[in-house]
Amino acid sequence: MELFARTQSSAKRSAIASAGGSPAFSLAEVAKLVQPHLEQVDKRIAQQAAAFDPAIEGYVVYTVGSRGKRLRPLLTLLVGGATGMIDSRHIDLAVIVELIHIATLVHDDVMDEAEKRRSQPTPNARWGNSLSVLLGDCLFAHALTLSTNFKNSDISRAIARTAATVCSGEMIQTQRRFDLNLKVEDYLRIVQMKTGSLFSAAAELAAMISEADPNAIETFKNYGFQVGTAYQIYDDCVDLAGTESVTGKTLGTDLRKGKFTLPVLIFLRSASEFERERCCQLVLDEKIEEMIELLKNGANNGALNESIAVGSELIRKAQCAFDGIKPNRYTDALFSLGEALCDMFGQLRV
Amino acid sequence: MELFARTQSSAKRSAIASAGGSPAFSLAEVAKLVQPHLEQVDKRIAQQAAAFDPAIEGYVVYTVGSRGKRLRPLLTLLVGGATGMIDSRHIDLAVIVELIHIATLVHDDVMDEAEKRRSQPTPNARWGNSLSVLLGDCLFAHALTLSTNFKNSDISRAIARTAATVCSGEMIQTQRRFDLNLKVEDYLRIVQMKTGSLFSAAAELAAMISEADPNAIETFKNYGFQVGTAYQIYDDCVDLAGTESVTGKTLGTDLRKGKFTLPVLIFLRSASEFERERCCQLVLDEKIEEMIELLKNGANNGALNESIAVGSELIRKAQCAFDGIKPNRYTDALFSLGEALCDMFGQLRV
Repeated sequence: MELFARTQSSAKRSAIASAGGSPAFSLAEVAKLVQPHLEQVDKRIAQQAAAFDPAIEGYVVYTVGSRGKRLRPLLTLLVGGATGMIDSRHIDLAVIVELIHIATLVHDDVMDEAEKRRSQPTPNARWGNSLSVLLGDCLFAHALTLSTNFKNSDISRAIARTAATVCSGEMIQTQRRFDLNLKVEDYLRIVQMKTGSLFSAAAELAAMISEADPNAIETFKNYGFQVGTAYQIYDDCVDLAGTESVTGKTLGTDLRKGKFTLPVLIFLRSASEFERERCCQLVLDEKIEEMIELLKNGANNGALNESIAVGSELIRKAQCAFDGIKPNRYTDALFSLGEALCDMFGQLRV
Repeated sequence: MELFARTQSSAKRSAIASAGGSPAFSLAEVAKLVQPHLEQVDKRIAQQAAAFDPAIEGYVVYTVGSRGKRLRPLLTLLVGGATGMIDSRHIDLAVIVELIHIATLVHDDVMDEAEKRRSQPTPNARWGNSLSVLLGDCLFAHALTLSTNFKNSDISRAIARTAATVCSGEMIQTQRRFDLNLKVEDYLRIVQMKTGSLFSAAAELAAMISEADPNAIETFKNYGFQVGTAYQIYDDCVDLAGTESVTGKTLGTDLRKGKFTLPVLIFLRSASEFERERCCQLVLDEKIEEMIELLKNGANNGALNESIAVGSELIRKAQCAFDGIKPNRYTDALFSLGEALCDMFGQLRV
């Protein structure tokens, strides 16, 4: 199935996309190209529960079952197709990166005390924090167990290292909560580590499995890195400007937990001395709700649009990299994936 | 250096050990045989902090630095010696199993809200729960990254699988908190999973690295499993009957957190209908302190001694297995390790 006219240069594709005459881009549209493979991934993820002790199988079933966007598997499969033929090792890789992602979500929700995700109660809301910390650990350990099945130990090493990077990024983010001195660059480094790295590994390792040439591996790795970073920026903007009924998750948690995301940091960067000082005082006085109100109002104007521009720019850069790659319908779909993300950004614009 | 007369059959060794004429057994004595290697392990563990982002290096230094008993590294090194020559791969394995252990302790302390470990404030007491959950994740991911350096992927797979088993055991334990229907067998299965499995892997994989024959690998694996299980029983008895000044950690947390350990379960098994019902009522009424008092008093008599007997019996079984193994000073030291644990049990007897 063709998702995009095909094999055009990215400049030409961009022109078409922005001319308004392009087909509607959505993740669901992009996913159609690898739908049977995505279904295999879902089936395989669901099957993983059986690898756990019967006493805890139920928790795993619940947690891996609530269908997310499966963005990382989608990326893995598209890069697999772009660099050769999607085979069972790409499916394995997709399962592993999604399980690592799910494990981090379980821990995120514990830390954020989030009540809902994908319109379902979170594991911590259902079973408490202790059980959820361990559930995350189990999923994590299981994903890394699966990764040792790759014949090439470079792949399992890269996966474990990426998992460490993701957690390190989250740790720095947690360390710098309520830190009004956090810079935009610090924020970007955090999202690169916590999200960019796993997207990057998904793309890079999918190309490695296909035995693509080093240049192509590097190109897809960078594509994953930039798209992943952009996606996290998007997700952070949604937390500030989205609606719960659409996203299916508890929103506004970032600010409440002291996580200053891109729109907030951009606002603070250009805020008046008075606004910054007022913000500091509210943090010191632990008047969190008032601080949220101030920052939310501040960020929900130019700062939100500027954040959207930063994210969209990253995606454009990622798309440009394809100019050096032999095009096929999968590279076209990867290009469209970027368009879909840009469209999602566009919907947040105020 | 010889720790024990040498090369005697386990029956003969047991007779000497119990005759009272044996040398004093202590973990410190046993450790002397591999002291230089243990120091290498400690140095290597401390060096791991440098592998993390500078922003989080300090947390890792603090957490891996508070010297524990290093029981798992000790076991790894002794089995390495017992099956050949201790080489750098045994050191690597010792570092990895200890890091996994430390990671689980970090999460344990979050869940138990423990304030102190090894006489130092726990990570959660110093930096809060969120940061500590992520710190545990980072250590965990790093340990599994290191494990992918083994040429033999069976080893990295076994390590990841063991990590999953440890977490699953902890999860079942958490799931069954305050469950007065927990049986002694359920408890034993939990401690086998959460502690026996990592000791077992430490011993088994050390023997695999030495390319020992399958029978020897199996013997050491079982030895590790039984000694690890016994050690957890000991640790659980300490939580009930130990003193904080000696152990350097917050005690009494098990009961307070609803973890019914062996002495409590043995007490409940033989308790009168009246005592059981009273206990149930206190659980239902959330009168935790009164329940603790009741169970602690109940368990601190025959039930504690019976638990000690169960643990000691496991160690005796583990020691007997050496009859089929060619003895050397390392197998003798492993035998003495069992004696040291039995002595530790003995000190708890009331």
